[in-house]
Parts: sequence; C-alpha cells; structure tokens
Amino acid sequence: MSIRIIITGGTFDKHYDELQGELTFKNTHLPEILSFVRCTLPIKLEINQLIDSLDMQLANRMRILQSFRKAPEDRIIITHGTDTMVETAQLLGETGIEKTIVLTGSMVPYTFTNSDAVFNLGCSIIGVQLLPTGVFLIMNGKVFPWNNVCKNKKTGSFEEAT
Amino acid sequence: MSIRIIITGGTFDKHYDELQGELTFKNTHLPEILSFVRCTLPIKLEINQLIDSLDMQLANRMRILQSFRKAPEDRIIITHGTDTMVETAQLLGETGIEKTIVLTGSMVPYTFTNSDAVFNLGCSIIGVQLLPTGVFLIMNGKVFPWNNVCKNKKTGSFEEAT
Amino acid sequence: MSIRIIITGGTFDKHYDELQGELTFKNTHLPEILSFVRCTLPIKLEINQLIDSLDMQLANRMRILQSFRKAPEDRIIITHGTDTMVETAQLLGETGIEKTIVLTGSMVPYTFTNSDAVFNLGCSIIGVQLLPTGVFLIMNGKVFPWNNVCKNKKTGSFEEAT
Amino acid sequence: MSIRIIITGGTFDKHYDELQGELTFKNTHLPEILSFVRCTLPIKLEINQLIDSLDMQLANRMRILQSFRKAPEDRIIITHGTDTMVETAQLLGETGIEKTIVLTGSMVPYTFTNSDAVFNLGCSIIGVQLLPTGVFLIMNGKVFPWNNVCKNKKTGSFEEAT
Repeated sequence: MSIRIIITGGTFDKHYDELQGELTFKNTHLPEILSFVRCTLPIKLEINQLIDSLDMQLANRMRILQSFRKAPEDRIIITHGTDTMVETAQLLGETGIEKTIVLTGSMVPYTFTNSDAVFNLGCSIIGVQLLPTGVFLIMNGKVFPWNNVCKNKKTGSFEEAT
Repeated sequence: MSIRIIITGGTFDKHYDELQGELTFKNTHLPEILSFVRCTLPIKLEINQLIDSLDMQLANRMRILQSFRKAPEDRIIITHGTDTMVETAQLLGETGIEKTIVLTGSMVPYTFTNSDAVFNLGCSIIGVQLLPTGVFLIMNGKVFPWNNVCKNKKTGSFEEAT
Repeated sequence: MSIRIIITGGTFDKHYDELQGELTFKNTHLPEILSFVRCTLPIKLEINQLIDSLDMQLANRMRILQSFRKAPEDRIIITHGTDTMVETAQLLGETGIEKTIVLTGSMVPYTFTNSDAVFNLGCSIIGVQLLPTGVFLIMNGKVFPWNNVCKNKKTGSFEEAT
Repeated sequence: MSIRIIITGGTFDKHYDELQGELTFKNTHLPEILSFVRCTLPIKLEINQLIDSLDMQLANRMRILQSFRKAPEDRIIITHGTDTMVETAQLLGETGIEKTIVLTGSMVPYTFTNSDAVFNLGCSIIGVQLLPTGVFLIMNGKVFPWNNVCKNKKTGSFEEAT
C-alpha cells in the first residue's frame, strides 16, 4: 500500500530564522522524520506549498485539490496549518472524491523540543491506511470526519462540532 | 471511546542511570508524552511491569494476559520490548479474546533525541481505535496481524513472516 | 564563589505560544537548565525583565544597572537579547563598576532542538569566574571586552569591532 | 587563539546501537555540536580513541600524552569518561608540560534529551582560553586543578579532594 503526503507547511514545518528572529518556512522536515522513526512504508512526499494556513486563499486550496486529483495513490495525507485545516477539509470533503484523505498538522513546530508533530504524523500514517474512502482530520489522538469537527481556539484542541 | 495502555517496559521506557552508566528502568514516560502531544482521548495507564523483553518469561506474559482480561476497556495498547514482542503477540493471539489489542514499542529509547517512541505511540493510538477485534503489532508505520509478523534482526524492522 | 544571573529575556528565553502561534515570554528556563547540566556552583537567579532586546529602552537598561549595583555578588551574568547586547554592554562598561560582568544570550531559543543557549550559558559561567573586573560579552565561544565588539548582522555572529 | 580538542570517547560520545540495544561508540558528535552552537573559534578536532574510561589502561593514557606533546596548539581540551578522568588528569599533571589542558566529559550522553555534554563543552572552551598553564578538570560549572579533585560516586558530581 503506497501513501502520498502532500505538504502545505503550517506550524508543523515552521523553522526559526535566527537572523530575522522569526518563525518562517525553509524546507519540510518530513524526510528527516520518516527516517528516524524507522517508517518502512512506501511514502511519496510532495511539497505543494509552504505557507501559514492563515494565509491560505481559495487559490491555495485549489492547488491542494489538483494535487490529490492527479495523485496515483488512493491514500493521501495532507500536512496543514491548524487555523484553517477545517475549511480545507470541508472544501475537499464536498468534492466527493473516491480516496482516503487525512489532514493533520501540529500546534507546536517540529523544531521545538516538545512538539506534537511526530505523534500526529504517526496517527495519520496509520489512520490513512485503515480509514474508508472520505476526508478526515486527525489531531489530538482522534479521528474526525470533515463535516463534524472544529478547532477550540481556547484550548487549541479539535472537537466534534456538534 | 476509552483506551487502556498496559506498560511492560522495553526499550520504549529505558532510562539512563548516570551513576551506573547503564540503561535501566525507573518509571514510565507515557504520562509526559501524552501531555505534550496534546492527546485528548481518555486513556488509562497501567504499569504492569518494567522489564527488558529479553527477560520476559511465561510468568511475565501471563501477567499481561491477566491485565487485559480484567480491563474494562475493549481497546488496549501494550508497550513491549521489540525482541520478544512477536512471542507475546502470539500467546495473546491464541487466547482468542474478543478485544482489540495493539502491541508496540520502540527501537530507540524515548529519552534519546531521535527516538521512534512517540511516532509508534501515535500509530498505535489510532490503530487501536480503527482495527477490528484481534491482536496486532504496530511498528515502522505498519499494522501486522499477530500470526504473520517477525522482526528482521539485521535491519531492526518488522516484516510479514511469509 | 557565588554568582548572580540577571535575566532580561531575549531569544534565550523565548517560548512558543501555541494558541497565538507566536514566540513570546512566559517564564525563564534557567532553573531547568542549571538542574540538568548538573551545575553545583551556588547561583542566584533574578528575573529583571523578560523582553525582546529590540524593545529595550534606556529605562530598561537602567533597571539592569540598578540590579547589579544592589547585588551582593561580585560576579554577574546577564542574559540578554543579541540585537542590542552591545549597547547594554557599553552602557554598563562606561559606569566603571568594580565587578565582573558577562553578557550572553542565544541566537536560537532554548526551546528549539538545536539551540546555542546551553552552550553559551556554560561559556559564561566559567568566563565570569575567571575574568578580571570589567564588562565582557561571551558569544560564539569567544570573550569580547565591552568596547571592542559588534554583531555581524549577516552571519549572526559577534566579532571584534576593530 | 587556536584550540585542539583531543577526543577519547567517554559517556559524552556514547551512541545507542539500536540493533544490539547497547550504548557503544560509533563516531564523535563534536563537529555537529560545534556547528549548531555557532562557535567561531578556530578548533582542531582529533579523535585519539573512543573508549569507556573504565577500560582505560596506561597505554591509552600514554596515547593521550603523545597527542598533546605533538600538538602545535598551547590550549587543549580532552573529552574523557568521568570514571577515570581524575587519574588521567593526574598523569598529565605530573608531566609538567607547559600548556593549558582542560579535561571534561559528561554524565549523560550527548544523544540523550537532557545531557550535560553541550554545557560542559561550553565551560571548557572558555576555560581553556582563560586559564594559565597547567592541567585542569572542568565539570559541574566548576574549574578544578588536577591535584585537588575527586568524583563523588554517590552524587555523580566532582568536588575538591580536600
């Protein structure tokens, strides 16, 4: 079973630019992570864009949609910023494509000591293999269908919408 | 959905004793990990034993069996050393209990910089929620049924036995 | 020999606020660091302020000056943001106080995986014990007197000014 | 000012062999550390040997002695296991060579999350630049002359012998 990870940036891949003193994007950390976690599953990585999800416009979301329409794989993970992950999940969910899509991300960048990035990636890699066709969001150790999930801005955790 | 994690030690929870200069067991790191990965799923932790899986005798395996027979939860993760994880999976698999059991562990202790422990935990937390009744082993980003898995001692990775 | 560390914030102590997605200040990491590095020297910690050194005004610098005038210790480390560390060093150097003062900081926050914070702290703790009376800046494994140092904005490293 | 680091192994450079489940030596981590701590001082690295200091025999200590006799630098750091660091310091101290020698190491391997290795390296890099001719041991944020230091086996810290 082959999996594609479509990378869009988000907190997951944020990097500290020590000259500017800012969190920015430089490259993805996915190859490094997949190596040290000893993942032996065949995984294709695709850098779709590297942006903060607060900056995500419709054009950015269309680029994600195009990527997974073209992808030969039926099981796809999308790394995404948490702030608008639900919006992207909804747009993808409404297209009704016959693939298994899992959106994930992290609240703390991978480059920090106590990040949730590696855990969420593990959750998603197993989730995308076991879930049926459809669009899902995996965060906080839980699986959410695209049409019943929201981010609680006070706690920073994802919850059922209803 | 409530999950129980039965902790048996293994490389996952190994700790460096700086006075003796040895890797030993002191306590489990699971509470700390579940906190920083922002897991909001209800999880019960149970320290069953803290041993190297090379030291696991039948009596040790019976103690694991008793634990999950008594557990009120139907979905159970067992953290276990990788060297004899397959043997324990087989013993549990042959008992035919009607629960979903996932065995996992790590090749590098959690306390090391580049450990696979947090990734494997993420994999197992989603796996145990989505898999049917039965005994499974989750390592290297893959799900293995208990009766078709072995550890490749040369690569340190798990593979289908056949 | 007793040492005081006057904490002023800077990149050294920056913390990731996962709800806002920003680097801010919450508390100092010095107690945690001094514990795991096994430092047995008697050290007094004083949180003077927790700010970005780009925000440092004369009033902020006067507060540092007051702190080390009142301090009973003759050997004092000041943690400080790198952007205006040289300015603060000059202001302190010109006062001509009869103590050994070392300013240090970091280019990458302590909370990141590959930070220079712990190294710079080690450098400064030994530097402040061995240097004579005067004001010094310790960064990049080097000791600089307050009146012959500048930050190279292109490389992010400190150099002799002349 | 140019510095040589003579590497002899010890806990500092211990590596986890995940196939054997043991702490062993593979290579030194010094180049990686010196890079991310942003050290700009000219430093020559020399791998003299990579052993546990409990295995250090007279022949091993003679090899260290030969190395620093041949070294063109006058300021030399030796990374060394803590168990017999004091013995090696005494042997070097009694030779009366006209150089500044600092022995250091760590109680917890660099590859562990909360290691004292990077701190001790920072301490030693400044110590070796500021100390006079002689043999010193730097651990726990303190400088000890070779003839007045011992390791307290209960606490794992170094102390004055008298």
